[in-house]
Amino acid sequence: MSESKGIAYIQGRYMPVDEATIPLLDPAFTKSDVVFDVVSAWDGAFFKLAEHLARFRRSCEYIRVRPPCSDDEMCRIMAECATRSGFDHSCVYILCTRGSYAGGAATGDPRKSENKFIAYAVPYYWIVPKERLNSGAHLWIADTRRAPDAAINQRVKNFNRMDLTRAQFEALDAGADAPVLLSTDGFITEGPGFNVWIIQDGKVRTPGDNLLEGITRQCVFELCAEAGLQAEAADLTAADLQNADEVFISSTGGGVIAVTLVNDKPIGNGAPGITTGKISDNYWKKRAEGWEATPLADLLEPEMPQAAGAD
Amino acid sequence: MSESKGIAYIQGRYMPVDEATIPLLDPAFTKSDVVFDVVSAWDGAFFKLAEHLARFRRSCEYIRVRPPCSDDEMCRIMAECATRSGFDHSCVYILCTRGSYAGGAATGDPRKSENKFIAYAVPYYWIVPKERLNSGAHLWIADTRRAPDAAINQRVKNFNRMDLTRAQFEALDAGADAPVLLSTDGFITEGPGFNVWIIQDGKVRTPGDNLLEGITRQCVFELCAEAGLQAEAADLTAADLQNADEVFISSTGGGVIAVTLVNDKPIGNGAPGITTGKISDNYWKKRAEGWEATPLADLLEPEMPQAAGAD
Repeated sequence: MSESKGIAYIQGRYMPVDEATIPLLDPAFTKSDVVFDVVSAWDGAFFKLAEHLARFRRSCEYIRVRPPCSDDEMCRIMAECATRSGFDHSCVYILCTRGSYAGGAATGDPRKSENKFIAYAVPYYWIVPKERLNSGAHLWIADTRRAPDAAINQRVKNFNRMDLTRAQFEALDAGADAPVLLSTDGFITEGPGFNVWIIQDGKVRTPGDNLLEGITRQCVFELCAEAGLQAEAADLTAADLQNADEVFISSTGGGVIAVTLVNDKPIGNGAPGITTGKISDNYWKKRAEGWEATPLADLLEPEMPQAAGAD
Repeated sequence: MSESKGIAYIQGRYMPVDEATIPLLDPAFTKSDVVFDVVSAWDGAFFKLAEHLARFRRSCEYIRVRPPCSDDEMCRIMAECATRSGFDHSCVYILCTRGSYAGGAATGDPRKSENKFIAYAVPYYWIVPKERLNSGAHLWIADTRRAPDAAINQRVKNFNRMDLTRAQFEALDAGADAPVLLSTDGFITEGPGFNVWIIQDGKVRTPGDNLLEGITRQCVFELCAEAGLQAEAADLTAADLQNADEVFISSTGGGVIAVTLVNDKPIGNGAPGITTGKISDNYWKKRAEGWEATPLADLLEPEMPQAAGAD
């Protein structure tokens, strides 16, 4: 038996994620007409599940799709994907696609569609190479700008990532780990899959516009409040980032990760920041203590006698 | 036998397009990391094939993918899709996807990927309801803006269409046929799948920035030159559109189509424009005469004795 790459729930059944497909003509592909969210499952429990679900529902509402299942059903499916995958730590994706509609994607009416819910679990990942967790990540402020909310509302978690991918090429070509994108107005927004933070004169700040409001970003605000640190959303420039005392990123994929180099400029003394380290330690300490943890076992269908014809 | 919905070429073989799929985890889906083009095949011949291929190659270069086949091979595959589909008139899509890469879409290096070529033929379609070809289309200037080139280069034909889809909802909700999107700077850009034109005081104008430079748009420039009409790219506002003598759209999906209503404002006397009609008539007249037509039969593989083990 080959190693599990994860389990997907699609078209009403569970299957290995690397066998799951979507139709070539699905507008979810040909128009990127889909929203998603990603929840981490760690040692048998989801983290901040309710917040992720609420954000997913908001994304769905924004593009006017409705997952054909209740929150309880979604949670059960997510728990099944995570449990059946067999990973100690996983990332569970939930998607709602527009689905196909009469007349086809080019000329049909997308309001008359049958929306689909898809879920899948994959191994937990760190948004930057794992060896950077100790040494600090190298970010690159890209020339490519983040698409503005007036066009693509970035509070809605979506797959329209051509800007992020182009910026990622810039970062990788420069030898950096990941890009940070400026808005068309010239302010720091976010990177692919993470929010960006600076600490300057003891104050913690993160951009507030034209970005996904990360669940881990919300965690950092909570952690700062508990630690008595002043934290706020603010417009930040590339210079603010490069001249900060400390820089870090936050993501479901890795929690709180120090940044030690932005383009060619070392941050502070070039080592991961002390305050960043405290925030990161507190993040993982609280998670180990069961912070907003929802055991997968509580979400799974109770074992029942097998009904005739059940799938 | 059910009616053909079209034939796709994917993973090296031909199949009914409604059986073709892409992997759920393919970055072409989860990051919309793909470019495409669409060529019309009409009565057994492609139209402006070389121009479409050249634009497709430019799109590929921009996102740094390379179709794993020569132009000749692409043309043969496209002709096979069109011919095997059995339609008198079809639209043939060609796609190049990044393909998957080691480490996965979230953390891998997209520069180390195996790019894939996909093609498929579907029945020819008109970008607005066919009954509008005589009465004129109703456009809607949407609140949603077109993502700017600094984020997503719209000269590169791509599937990052969340802005277009949101604008389409606005148009359909308003009872219109299709939206037109403004740039973040407030100038007319394009609609989903078409360019926009106005005629004012005998001068023909179309936007020049933040849009796909349509092959049919290029046709209109050619047709205007032949007819002695002055035509140029220019910044156009919503007011320019609504106050024009004539408005029309151009697309591979329908050629040149008159617009008679923009939001709640009738254009001219509310009937399709005279000059628009002449341009449209000339477009179809020249096509019937074989304008830049490449017979599918010239592109197909010559019949050969079946080799052992051939697919």
